[in-house]
Amino acid sequence: MARPLASIVSAGVTKFGVREGVYSRELFAEAAQEAFQACPNLSPKKDIDGLFVGQMSESYEHQAHVAPMIADWVDLLPIPAVRTEAACASSSVALRCALLAIKSRMHDVVLVGGVEKMTNLPTADSTEYLAMASDFPFEQWHGISFPGIFAMMATAHMAKYGTTQEQLARVAVKNHENGTLNPKAHFQKRITIDDVLSSRTVAWPLRLYDCSPISDGASCVLLAAPKLAKKFTDTPVHIIGSGQAQDTLGLFERDDLTTMSVTKLAAKNAYEMAGIRTKQIDVAEVHDCFTIAEIIAYEALGLCKPGKGGKLIDEGVTGLGGKTPVNTSGGLKAKGHPVGATGTAQACEIYLQLTGQAGKRQVKGAEIGLTQNVGGSASTGVVHVYRRGD
Amino acid sequence: MARPLASIVSAGVTKFGVREGVYSRELFAEAAQEAFQACPNLSPKKDIDGLFVGQMSESYEHQAHVAPMIADWVDLLPIPAVRTEAACASSSVALRCALLAIKSRMHDVVLVGGVEKMTNLPTADSTEYLAMASDFPFEQWHGISFPGIFAMMATAHMAKYGTTQEQLARVAVKNHENGTLNPKAHFQKRITIDDVLSSRTVAWPLRLYDCSPISDGASCVLLAAPKLAKKFTDTPVHIIGSGQAQDTLGLFERDDLTTMSVTKLAAKNAYEMAGIRTKQIDVAEVHDCFTIAEIIAYEALGLCKPGKGGKLIDEGVTGLGGKTPVNTSGGLKAKGHPVGATGTAQACEIYLQLTGQAGKRQVKGAEIGLTQNVGGSASTGVVHVYRRGD
Repeated sequence: MARPLASIVSAGVTKFGVREGVYSRELFAEAAQEAFQACPNLSPKKDIDGLFVGQMSESYEHQAHVAPMIADWVDLLPIPAVRTEAACASSSVALRCALLAIKSRMHDVVLVGGVEKMTNLPTADSTEYLAMASDFPFEQWHGISFPGIFAMMATAHMAKYGTTQEQLARVAVKNHENGTLNPKAHFQKRITIDDVLSSRTVAWPLRLYDCSPISDGASCVLLAAPKLAKKFTDTPVHIIGSGQAQDTLGLFERDDLTTMSVTKLAAKNAYEMAGIRTKQIDVAEVHDCFTIAEIIAYEALGLCKPGKGGKLIDEGVTGLGGKTPVNTSGGLKAKGHPVGATGTAQACEIYLQLTGQAGKRQVKGAEIGLTQNVGGSASTGVVHVYRRGD
Repeated sequence: MARPLASIVSAGVTKFGVREGVYSRELFAEAAQEAFQACPNLSPKKDIDGLFVGQMSESYEHQAHVAPMIADWVDLLPIPAVRTEAACASSSVALRCALLAIKSRMHDVVLVGGVEKMTNLPTADSTEYLAMASDFPFEQWHGISFPGIFAMMATAHMAKYGTTQEQLARVAVKNHENGTLNPKAHFQKRITIDDVLSSRTVAWPLRLYDCSPISDGASCVLLAAPKLAKKFTDTPVHIIGSGQAQDTLGLFERDDLTTMSVTKLAAKNAYEMAGIRTKQIDVAEVHDCFTIAEIIAYEALGLCKPGKGGKLIDEGVTGLGGKTPVNTSGGLKAKGHPVGATGTAQACEIYLQLTGQAGKRQVKGAEIGLTQNVGGSASTGVVHVYRRGD
């Protein structure tokens, strides 16, 4: 297996959900405090020399230029602080930039995370702001938003492969089940296939319970050069593979609506860099903004063949007791989807799993983990591979 | 002097100004085409393995998630593409991330640039969108915008050091003079001290001609690992120093309104990395969003002592025939200030100067160049040092 690119030495994540009375800067500081307190050997002000923050939208809080603001709120001024934006993959791109920073040797220890405060405005505003991640002249302007975009992927997948609404529903049921085991999850509620199939249609075939919620939240990890990791923790988690790829902004420009080319390519590059095969993955967090996205992720990551994602969920392979548990955190569907926070929240879950701190949802003996995050209609795709430290 | 971090092998910049009938993606492609055509030994699709783009605002074109869109428009899909945002320093932060990418050895050749399309909306909208780079609860909400913020710096500087409105005006006159020598500049018009002093007050003591304009434009550079540079060009420009620092988002939180701590610290770090002293700088592009900002930049960069910036402009030191010409491009003031494009446009000018391609504004024999860019009220500061290749 490959040498580490960088090592996670701590992680923090806020309760996701409706977080009233706080600004995004306060949410981020809450996540950072958790990460700092869990890593007493690290002195933030002395050791951290860079900050990378993913946040999607300036519109919710009428606030751009958030990197220095967040650096201030976590008491890390005047170190270099960078905001990256890649829609719902914003903080996975921040994580990748942080890897470049560590690997460049221009940084030794960086704080990398993401945040979004979304519930302060009506849902219609959120729908509009999120739609900015699709193409303005060719998509938004014509009135489509993301439920419609993912519904088109779902209908294409159903038409080509016979995937059913029950299979989509099963993704939601699994992730809600996992969410009840994660105290930080937005939803703490079991649901049934019938609950999903009888919920109102948002964009056919996607029903309310096929859609991730609008949430507030923040997440972060502390990333160190591998040679320094043991100074800060006895149980580092190494990042051993990183892949990122882009596709057209518009879904309509794609040859095939039933897959995500960015995930396929990012996974290929991340696996090669890590020197692993898909079957070695013990636990994965994937991007289930809508249930169909998790089905497609299974296929694009190579957990099953194209078209067999529905069968995979039917057979329980990705459930907590299955061969490759997916979205043990509850996923975007039940943990919540504060878009800027989602990428590093996935990394936090894998860190907990590979260090044996995942509580009731712990995957026993997990050694290799994976995160898969997409932005927009999978115009951006990021995959990272993690290995438990020795 | 230090070894190069990375090498610029080509550059492109659009005409700045009011660019009707195009989207930002088209402007960026125009800049990229210029850079590609000037570098025939480089095959974009084959050689470029990363894209970094600075853009400030999603609001002008109702468009976030611009990195994959721009990658598509310059025909570079599916390579990793990253958007950074740091207000008016967005593309300088992109350039710094691109340096990390090259130095990490995970990338060999990257395209890095910035773009903003601002003139399609009324000036009042621009003022509001730009104000998002200041603190919402503590600044924006109370009605202040950037002319007011920089006016407070100017009055503090005048009170502490006796800096005069004539000295501020002289910055505008110099930069407009330089702008007449740059065919890409927004303004191609000489102005006099009297023109500035008789123009209408925007926020006392700043008058209309003390303020940079709202412009459309894009800029980019092609950055390669130093060992590959000669494969693509006989005349590379090496980046030998890079510094970035952050300060509070709010101006009101600072101890001293008459300086920019971020520029001082970024310059210190960049000079140390480059192994140079201030007096070695042959040509510089600095952030003159308002005339007072250029005066403060002189002092923060060490071109003169604190409080002596007014004297420096009076003595002609920073004019085209002076010891250290500053803003030969026309600066933000006359070249224009499409905020996302500004950072890499500064790098483009230094590239032209150090390769002897700056036409009528050429600084003879220039070997060492510098760029200084700030975001917001200097909450972000980035400084780069460049050396003419052997």
